[in-house]
Amino acid sequence: MTLRRSRDVPTLVAAARDGDPRAVARLISLVEDGDTALPDIAAALAPHTGRAAVIGLTGAPGVGKSTTTNELVAAYRKVGRRVGVLAVDPSSPFTGGAILGDRVRMQDHATDPGVYIRSMSSRGHLGGLSAATPQAARVLDGAGCDPVLIETVGVGQAEVEIAGLADTTVVLLAPGMGDAIQAAKAGVLETADVFVVNKADRDGADATYRDIQGMIGLGDRAPGEWRPRVVRCVAARAEGIGELVDAVDAHRSHLVTSGALAARRVRRAEAEVEAIALGTLRARMQDLRTGDTLSTLAREVAEGRLDPYTAADTLLARLS
Amino acid sequence: MTLRRSRDVPTLVAAARDGDPRAVARLISLVEDGDTALPDIAAALAPHTGRAAVIGLTGAPGVGKSTTTNELVAAYRKVGRRVGVLAVDPSSPFTGGAILGDRVRMQDHATDPGVYIRSMSSRGHLGGLSAATPQAARVLDGAGCDPVLIETVGVGQAEVEIAGLADTTVVLLAPGMGDAIQAAKAGVLETADVFVVNKADRDGADATYRDIQGMIGLGDRAPGEWRPRVVRCVAARAEGIGELVDAVDAHRSHLVTSGALAARRVRRAEAEVEAIALGTLRARMQDLRTGDTLSTLAREVAEGRLDPYTAADTLLARLS
Repeated sequence: MTLRRSRDVPTLVAAARDGDPRAVARLISLVEDGDTALPDIAAALAPHTGRAAVIGLTGAPGVGKSTTTNELVAAYRKVGRRVGVLAVDPSSPFTGGAILGDRVRMQDHATDPGVYIRSMSSRGHLGGLSAATPQAARVLDGAGCDPVLIETVGVGQAEVEIAGLADTTVVLLAPGMGDAIQAAKAGVLETADVFVVNKADRDGADATYRDIQGMIGLGDRAPGEWRPRVVRCVAARAEGIGELVDAVDAHRSHLVTSGALAARRVRRAEAEVEAIALGTLRARMQDLRTGDTLSTLAREVAEGRLDPYTAADTLLARLS
Repeated sequence: MTLRRSRDVPTLVAAARDGDPRAVARLISLVEDGDTALPDIAAALAPHTGRAAVIGLTGAPGVGKSTTTNELVAAYRKVGRRVGVLAVDPSSPFTGGAILGDRVRMQDHATDPGVYIRSMSSRGHLGGLSAATPQAARVLDGAGCDPVLIETVGVGQAEVEIAGLADTTVVLLAPGMGDAIQAAKAGVLETADVFVVNKADRDGADATYRDIQGMIGLGDRAPGEWRPRVVRCVAARAEGIGELVDAVDAHRSHLVTSGALAARRVRRAEAEVEAIALGTLRARMQDLRTGDTLSTLAREVAEGRLDPYTAADTLLARLS
């Protein structure tokens, strides 16, 4: 189905703002497919974005991310907030995005019109978040979801990427998962705003808690800089979720009062604009490849009549 | 030491053409460092390039690539040809390019002014050939080396890359190296013009030879298309090297008479020009990042006054 862009985009965005889940689904699909209407969608959404708290949740497989996300959704719904969830699966580049496990666990909210849950693949992006994720988050933001939760499997790079996308990054750990602690030591510490020691009823939870607190204590922090909080949860029994919400809220207040939120969002927009610009350039290069400009230049280079740098300059001049 | 480009480049290229090894070394260093004189160097070299037969040698570690290269150099020297060797080490991104093992094994030719041997790192290129390799091959070509041998460790992608760079691709195998055979099955078959079963005095050499011949027999080939040759060698005893030279020469004759050489070189020049153009674009994007254009646009996006696509378009308009 092709979108007749000039007429349909404003209608679709208006319907999404009214909370129509089909309109939201449609917009995210267009975003995922890289539809030609994307710039129009982004333009129509822009005035309505920037309101949602974007919360990233990450951690190693099995640490309880989906369960925790599920409980967070319930907590935010209790206070009447519309919630958006993007579940990103970096390990399955070929699926359209369905993660059966997550879907099943999230089914508590499947019939709640105040919750929009979407699984996304990470296609088009090496081992990390989909390039469409920031745009999908914009759709949820524009549709009045606040917060927008982005859940992703922590595989090193993902934590850093989600920190670039979220206002608040929550890193989940569980007792006895040595790898997670090592990952935390290796660099997650700089990206996490809140740590969750999940499965806190298990052996070793206290040790994990102390390890994290110890690491936080070692970090250099400027006066007034946020000190990461550590929360103990048993998400499967909904324990500690109130404390987690408090920690996330406290971080957000800190971001707002310190002015760090605005700075963080400008940096995020920089990365987003740069990524779109690079994508556009790659597409233009592809167009040049399919035309005869490149092959004509290459022929001259192959025959020694032109050097490759002058040829590249000529090629670039045609891009504009 | 900075190159005063306008005056020095022609002098340096002239010296390299006269066979001055220091001039050749200097030019390759400038190429590896991405010196600002690169376009001038490429322009000065262009009229003198396109003569060398570029021969790629690849294969798994331990298969005898350096020994075979060494013997090929000896064979070409015997008939009075000036030989250039580029040894690319994709596994050491941080070295300046020295591969002690290769250097030692190549020392037969260390004092021969008719041989130019250079080790190159693969820095700047994920797990494959250095982006500087095609330019370094141009320097050797322009300096009158013919053939230019490019030796690289076969790690899947490398075979494909070397096939994009060489006129003739030689893939080395050894008996009992199941992995190499698997790699061959997986895709090397399309890229190899000549197979070498090295260490052909070892158990299993006949089986390896038959395996390769069998695979070649299964390949679809248009009438008149080159059928890969398989040569048995014991490079450590210089056995079979004459047959290898014959096979490489036969492939070259085929390329010339069929017109495939020109087509191959145009494709290679296309890839080279495109890579240079993309590199230039990335550098320009970097310049924009360091200026205030991107951050100004990002601020407007973060505040919802501009959508990221319009911002990206504005950014791109500044590139030209």
